[in-house]
Amino acid sequence: MYNHFMFRRIYLDNSATTPVAPEVVEAMLPYLTEKHGNASSIHFFGQEARAAVDKARHQVAALINARPNEIVFTSGGTEADNLAILGFSSPRVSSPTVSEGAAGDLTTSPHIITSAIEHSAVKASCAELEKRGFAVTYLPVYENGIVRVADVEAAITDNTFLITIMMANNEIGTIQPIAEIGRLVKQLREKGKKIYLHTDAVQAVGKINIDVEELGCDLLSMSAHKIYAPKGVGALYVRRGVRLTAQSLGGHQERDRRGGTESVPNIVAFGAAAEMAKHELETSAATLGGLRNNLESRIGEMITDVVFNGDRENRIPTVANISFRGVEGEGLLINLDMQGVAVSTGSACSSGTLEPSPVIRALCGSPHEVRAPDKTDDSLPDEDRARGAIRFSLGRFNTADDIDRVLDILPNAVQTLRQLAPTTHKQSA
Amino acid sequence: MYNHFMFRRIYLDNSATTPVAPEVVEAMLPYLTEKHGNASSIHFFGQEARAAVDKARHQVAALINARPNEIVFTSGGTEADNLAILGFSSPRVSSPTVSEGAAGDLTTSPHIITSAIEHSAVKASCAELEKRGFAVTYLPVYENGIVRVADVEAAITDNTFLITIMMANNEIGTIQPIAEIGRLVKQLREKGKKIYLHTDAVQAVGKINIDVEELGCDLLSMSAHKIYAPKGVGALYVRRGVRLTAQSLGGHQERDRRGGTESVPNIVAFGAAAEMAKHELETSAATLGGLRNNLESRIGEMITDVVFNGDRENRIPTVANISFRGVEGEGLLINLDMQGVAVSTGSACSSGTLEPSPVIRALCGSPHEVRAPDKTDDSLPDEDRARGAIRFSLGRFNTADDIDRVLDILPNAVQTLRQLAPTTHKQSA
Repeated sequence: MYNHFMFRRIYLDNSATTPVAPEVVEAMLPYLTEKHGNASSIHFFGQEARAAVDKARHQVAALINARPNEIVFTSGGTEADNLAILGFSSPRVSSPTVSEGAAGDLTTSPHIITSAIEHSAVKASCAELEKRGFAVTYLPVYENGIVRVADVEAAITDNTFLITIMMANNEIGTIQPIAEIGRLVKQLREKGKKIYLHTDAVQAVGKINIDVEELGCDLLSMSAHKIYAPKGVGALYVRRGVRLTAQSLGGHQERDRRGGTESVPNIVAFGAAAEMAKHELETSAATLGGLRNNLESRIGEMITDVVFNGDRENRIPTVANISFRGVEGEGLLINLDMQGVAVSTGSACSSGTLEPSPVIRALCGSPHEVRAPDKTDDSLPDEDRARGAIRFSLGRFNTADDIDRVLDILPNAVQTLRQLAPTTHKQSA
Repeated sequence: MYNHFMFRRIYLDNSATTPVAPEVVEAMLPYLTEKHGNASSIHFFGQEARAAVDKARHQVAALINARPNEIVFTSGGTEADNLAILGFSSPRVSSPTVSEGAAGDLTTSPHIITSAIEHSAVKASCAELEKRGFAVTYLPVYENGIVRVADVEAAITDNTFLITIMMANNEIGTIQPIAEIGRLVKQLREKGKKIYLHTDAVQAVGKINIDVEELGCDLLSMSAHKIYAPKGVGALYVRRGVRLTAQSLGGHQERDRRGGTESVPNIVAFGAAAEMAKHELETSAATLGGLRNNLESRIGEMITDVVFNGDRENRIPTVANISFRGVEGEGLLINLDMQGVAVSTGSACSSGTLEPSPVIRALCGSPHEVRAPDKTDDSLPDEDRARGAIRFSLGRFNTADDIDRVLDILPNAVQTLRQLAPTTHKQSA
C-alpha cells in the first residue's frame, strides 16, 4: 500500500473546498502588500481598496446576472445563509404572534418552508427561528434527492413569508427546481402574498449557469472557496428592494448590511475567481462532467453492489456520490487517503459527528415512488446505504489520469473492506 | 504641490489597517495553494489544514498569555465584539424581566456597563441589546480620555452581568484601566456576584503587552489586520468556563462557538503575525514611540494652536491625535493625501458620516477636572477641536524619514487651510 504513488496526492474533495487558482492568487497578492488600504479610509490607499472592492462586486454580480449593488460581501457561505434567513426574518420577531422561546405553530406564527437536505448553515438558521417562535416546514426529498414544487405549493399557508431551498445539494449535487419555485412565488406575489425566495447556491455557483432573473429568487448565497478563491469570503445576493437587518453589527460597511472591515484581498480574489468561473463555465462543466461520468460508469463496471445516490440528470457536473454495500464510508475514505486519494463521506461541515449522512438518509426515508434508476441492488438496506456513501467531487485541477489512478485503487480498497466487514457480503468486487 | 515626492507615499494610518508583513504573506501562501484543505475534512489535506489552524491558535494564545482552547477564530474584530457581547448575553434574553422591543431599566433588567468611546462594533452590540430589553450604562471619559474605575464601581447594580470597556481607544490610543477593573470584578465575584469583563483589545494587541491573567478579563477581542496580517480574520479570547451562544450558525467549527469553514490562510497569517508581534513587541514599541514622540514635539514647536488629544502617558505608542485650531480635519486629511501622506480623522469604520469624532467630543463634553496638560490653547472651542482632529498612526514600515517628510508638509498645509478658513484665525502657523 505504501509506495511512491502516495506522494502524488489526488484531491477529489472539491465540494469541501478548492485550492486557490494561481491567477486568483496573483490578483489578490497586491492587496495584501502595497495596496493595503482599508476600503473605508478617505485617502489614496483607502480609495484604491474601495475601487478594488467595487470591481469585485461587479465581477461577482456578473456571474449571477445581478446588479453590483445587490451583492453584500460576507465572511463566507454560512454568514450569507445566516444573513439571508435571520436578517430577513428579524423584523418579524416583534410580531405579536411570536412568543419567544417556543416554536411557533402553523396557524398563527410567521412561517418558513425549507427542505430536509439543506446545509447546516440553513438548517441551524431555521432552528434558531423556531426557538424564536417561528414555524418551519421541512419538505421531504424523493428518492432522486429532489424537492417537488407541488409539495412547496401545498405547504404554503397564509403566514408563509420565506421559502429557503438550496440550489444544489452539497453531498449528492442534485439541482432543486428553484426557477419553478420562483415562478410559483411570482404568481403568489401577483395575488398579493408577501412570500420571498432564498436559495443557498454555494455548491451551484461556478458549476452551472446561475441567473437570478431566471431563478426569480430574492436572496442567493455564495461562497468563494468553492470556486478557487480563499476561504473566509462569500456573498449574499439581495434583490433590489428586499430589506435585511444586519447581523454583523459595527460600522456602515456594505451599505449598513454588514458591519466590519472588508476583507479586501479575499474580496478581490472572489471577484477574480467569479470572472474566471463565468469565462470557463461551459468548458469546465463539459470537461469535469465527462471525467465524473467516466468515473461512475467504470465504477459501475468494476464494482458490484453499488448505488449511485441522487438524480443522474439534474445535478451539478462535478459530484459523484456512491454507496458501496457492506462498506463503511469512513473506512473507505481512510483507506483511500492512505493511498493518496482524498474523498469525503459527506459535508465537511458535518464531519466528526460519526452520524451517517442525513442527506442520504433523507433519500432513503423518502416516499419511494421515484426510485433511482441506477440503484443496482434494490435490497441494499437504507442504513447501509447512508453509512457506505462516498462523495467524489472534481475540480479544475483534476485530470483523466487522476480518475485512472482512483480506479486502480478503489476496487481493491472496496474488496478489502468488504472482506473485513462483519456482514455476509464477501463476494469479490 | 504636485511634485515627484508625491509618488513616494507615506502611510500613517496603521490604526485603520496595516500592510501584511512579507514574512506573514510567506507563511500563508502555501495554504492558499498546495495546502488547501478544509480543516474539517478527515483526509490528509484536511489534517494538514487542521494542524495549521492549531498552530496558529497556539501562536495567538501565546501573544496574550491564554490557552489555545480559549481562542475562537472569527472573521475579524467586529465579529469578535459581537460574539463576546451578544453571545454572552443571549442566554439572558429569555429572562422574564426582559421585554422584547423596549430598552430595559436599571432596577429590573439585565445590565451592562460600557464606555462612551467604544468602537462601533461594541456600541452597536450594546444598542442591539437595549432593543432587546437590556439596560446599558455608558460611562463618561474624562479630559484625558480615560474611564474611572470609581465610576465603574458606582455604576454596578444587582443586575449587572457584563462590563465591556475597550483596552485602547481607536482614535486617541488611550489605555483604559482594564486590570484595575478586572481586580474589581474579581472582588465582586468573590462576594458571589456574577459579573464578567470583556475588553475590545483590537487597538492594543501587538502595541502593548497584553496578558489576560494580569487583566483578569473573561473575554478579549482581537483583529489580525491591525498587526500585519490580512483583513478578514480576528479572534475572541474566551476564558475557560465562560459559556457563549454561537452567533454564526452552521457547522461545529471552533467547538460549536462559530459555525463556518475556517479561513485557514488568514488564520495561519494571524498566527504568524501574532508570533512576530510577541517577538518584536518591546523594540517596536520603543522605536515607534520614539518616532511618534518626535512627531508630536516637533509639531508642538512648529505649529501654534494645537491640542494633543488624550492622555500623554497612558496610551499606545503608535498614535498621535492632534487638533489644529481653525482647520477642518477632513480638509487637512485631503490636503496631506494630495501630497502623498495618508492620515485619518478618526475611525475608518465611522468615516463617511461627516460627523465630528464622537471620541473627541466625549473628551470635550467630559467633566473637566482633569485637563489635558498639553492643551496649549484652553480657549479652543470644543466643536472646533472635534472637527479639527487628525490621527497619525505609525506602523513597522514607518521610518524617521517619513516623519521628516510629514513635517516638511504639515505646517504649510495647516497654514494654507487656516488662511482659507472663514474664522479669524489667520496668524501664521
